[in-house]
Amino acid sequence: MVYETLRYDVSDGILTLTLHRPDSLNAFTVTMAEELVDAFGRAGTDDDVAAIVVTGSGRAFCAGMDLSAEGNVFGLDETLRPTPEELRERLDDPEIVRGVRDTGGRVTLAIFDCPKPVIAAINGPAVGIGATMTLPMDVRIASEKARIGFVFGRLGIVPEAASSWFLPRLVGISRALEWTYSADILTAAEAHEGGLVRSVVPPEELLPTAYALAAKFTTDRSRVGTALTRKLIYRNVAQPHPLEAHLTDSLAMFWTSVGDGKEGVRAFREKRRPEFTERDVPRVFPS
Amino acid sequence: MVYETLRYDVSDGILTLTLHRPDSLNAFTVTMAEELVDAFGRAGTDDDVAAIVVTGSGRAFCAGMDLSAEGNVFGLDETLRPTPEELRERLDDPEIVRGVRDTGGRVTLAIFDCPKPVIAAINGPAVGIGATMTLPMDVRIASEKARIGFVFGRLGIVPEAASSWFLPRLVGISRALEWTYSADILTAAEAHEGGLVRSVVPPEELLPTAYALAAKFTTDRSRVGTALTRKLIYRNVAQPHPLEAHLTDSLAMFWTSVGDGKEGVRAFREKRRPEFTERDVPRVFPS
Amino acid sequence: MVYETLRYDVSDGILTLTLHRPDSLNAFTVTMAEELVDAFGRAGTDDDVAAIVVTGSGRAFCAGMDLSAEGNVFGLDETLRPTPEELRERLDDPEIVRGVRDTGGRVTLAIFDCPKPVIAAINGPAVGIGATMTLPMDVRIASEKARIGFVFGRLGIVPEAASSWFLPRLVGISRALEWTYSADILTAAEAHEGGLVRSVVPPEELLPTAYALAAKFTTDRSRVGTALTRKLIYRNVAQPHPLEAHLTDSLAMFWTSVGDGKEGVRAFREKRRPEFTERDVPRVFPS
Repeated sequence: MVYETLRYDVSDGILTLTLHRPDSLNAFTVTMAEELVDAFGRAGTDDDVAAIVVTGSGRAFCAGMDLSAEGNVFGLDETLRPTPEELRERLDDPEIVRGVRDTGGRVTLAIFDCPKPVIAAINGPAVGIGATMTLPMDVRIASEKARIGFVFGRLGIVPEAASSWFLPRLVGISRALEWTYSADILTAAEAHEGGLVRSVVPPEELLPTAYALAAKFTTDRSRVGTALTRKLIYRNVAQPHPLEAHLTDSLAMFWTSVGDGKEGVRAFREKRRPEFTERDVPRVFPS
Repeated sequence: MVYETLRYDVSDGILTLTLHRPDSLNAFTVTMAEELVDAFGRAGTDDDVAAIVVTGSGRAFCAGMDLSAEGNVFGLDETLRPTPEELRERLDDPEIVRGVRDTGGRVTLAIFDCPKPVIAAINGPAVGIGATMTLPMDVRIASEKARIGFVFGRLGIVPEAASSWFLPRLVGISRALEWTYSADILTAAEAHEGGLVRSVVPPEELLPTAYALAAKFTTDRSRVGTALTRKLIYRNVAQPHPLEAHLTDSLAMFWTSVGDGKEGVRAFREKRRPEFTERDVPRVFPS
Repeated sequence: MVYETLRYDVSDGILTLTLHRPDSLNAFTVTMAEELVDAFGRAGTDDDVAAIVVTGSGRAFCAGMDLSAEGNVFGLDETLRPTPEELRERLDDPEIVRGVRDTGGRVTLAIFDCPKPVIAAINGPAVGIGATMTLPMDVRIASEKARIGFVFGRLGIVPEAASSWFLPRLVGISRALEWTYSADILTAAEAHEGGLVRSVVPPEELLPTAYALAAKFTTDRSRVGTALTRKLIYRNVAQPHPLEAHLTDSLAMFWTSVGDGKEGVRAFREKRRPEFTERDVPRVFPS
């Protein structure tokens, strides 16, 4: 698969997705948004891919929306003036999709829906959409050279890409407000202290750390079990009552217990490594 | 009350509920699930019980589902193939309850509904359902010998017992995903660092610490006030708007202010210890 | 504007709202509740106010409900006996508002709805409603002399002011339960360690720190962008699915990108400070 703005490289079951506009610090464009949505959809159904590592080409991770572009950098259609009700009604109307729906959010919802573990390997500056696109990734590892900034306030705009759902869940409401109000550029250490990144490593250890974690997440693991685990956690963390989790994990447990779980228990009893083969992920949420 | 798999001992207003299959590291069975549901229901209405401490007999807390049992260890009925919609419609149908609804979740929902403080005193390995059953307990204290593992991924199954609702709320989405993907066995120190356990103590101090906390939670406290506090926090942490909390805490405040609150204010003014007598917990949520 | 229980002072775009009953340790009364609701409403639409700092007069922040008052200190009407359903139906009925709806919650919902950053500068004891009223404020800074106590359990009543929505989101479910069950008075250091306060400073640095943060949050910032950021984070942190955040931040991004965002991008390209002028905050949530 060839993309204009990305590299899509699969090796040993791990997809490395590289933001690749190194001459522009991998700045985000509408094309990059569309290619990211495509790549996460593709990776979700690609049997050669068990987990995904996202990083940037060159010295940046992603410097944010490409403000050097001519014209309307946000890509929204100024003639449209939707109300909240209208936006909901016309959610999939192409005019609304292109003219009103934030491109970053289309990317983060695609990552949210991905059935495979996603690891962000933040190699350098990650600013604006470069920061918010990492929020639906399961784990963020930062190089000592990483800098992370929710800088929307400097431009008179708002945090996007559904970051108002993800960021306060990851770092708490108070820190999310302080970081977005102040629009500060955080060092890797500050981002770690705030709970945003899992660990900070020297630049040369960034990708090896990410790959080691990806291997740990996928070796001797059921693809179906992992896909369901990811969905259960992201959906049920936000449900109003644990009964919802009980209903959906009962279904997930049912389907895995009659699937890869049989092999899992057999292998456990026989003290050998399991060989999981299932691929079809059952639907466990009604919507 | 005599149980096959549990000990139910009440002393000084504190129920100690001991998982008691020490020859099997207190491994979980369907009988244990049913007895736990019964015991938490009983404790909820037992006026001699003000708080509950849960621990394990012998060197383990609970080694997880008893995989040494013959046949279908998960206890689910392979002939059933429910859709998400069907499961919801037949939620209380005995065939579905026994054949599809996860036994661990039936236990954790019973703990969630308990009107009294619940403290986990994790004395040794707590693995699989042994780990997830502690999540709806209010506070987890770990012995230095505790080991905690969300090991479902090793068996090709998923985290259960509504843990996808509880775990990411307790330790964050990212850590919940890492712990379940990796299926690592955590030391007590790692569980503490991750925010899962409140404190780590030498083995001989585990129960004394738990009892001291239980005493602090219940001495000179209104049973009704405590029951409502527990319900308000577990329900409102997950509501989409704080108005819901305002409505339900207004009702709870109303009923306690015309009940034990009168004695509380009198005792405060008279600089003496209060004597709370109310027992009827009002309904404050419409469902 | 003259209040009986508050001081309302605006300087350099920052409103300092001072709880002002110093002879009673700024204890909370129904009058104070009504004046706080009024003041936050007023500040929300006052163009001279870009951010709000809340502090206490004298040595306390707020010693909680004024229990020295004669008669029914909670201000609720004992003859009313609403069910959960009835309360919802009669939510705005003056008899219910005055007789059942918790006064603290009316204040915290007014703070929740405020379109401007709110910083708590906790100068001394903050107890009961004195503690819970700070929870919907965006950032809490504590003097070394601050003491914070969720002491409702001592009086046989429950945590109010929608604190069961805010507190477990700020400090976690387990700590929220421990703090409310125990009713302990926390030191500033304990509140900081538990994640409730952002930082602890010497008394003389408290207001300067709060003002410096308020200036950072508001200098060269779009009023509309900030108001929308605050609303997006508080509302979307509690939505069941990130799609809701995508819908609402798309609208917010749309309206800011055709408003102050144009000036923001221009200023960025011209390497100068932006001059934001917009004041009308668009509606982005359907309700």
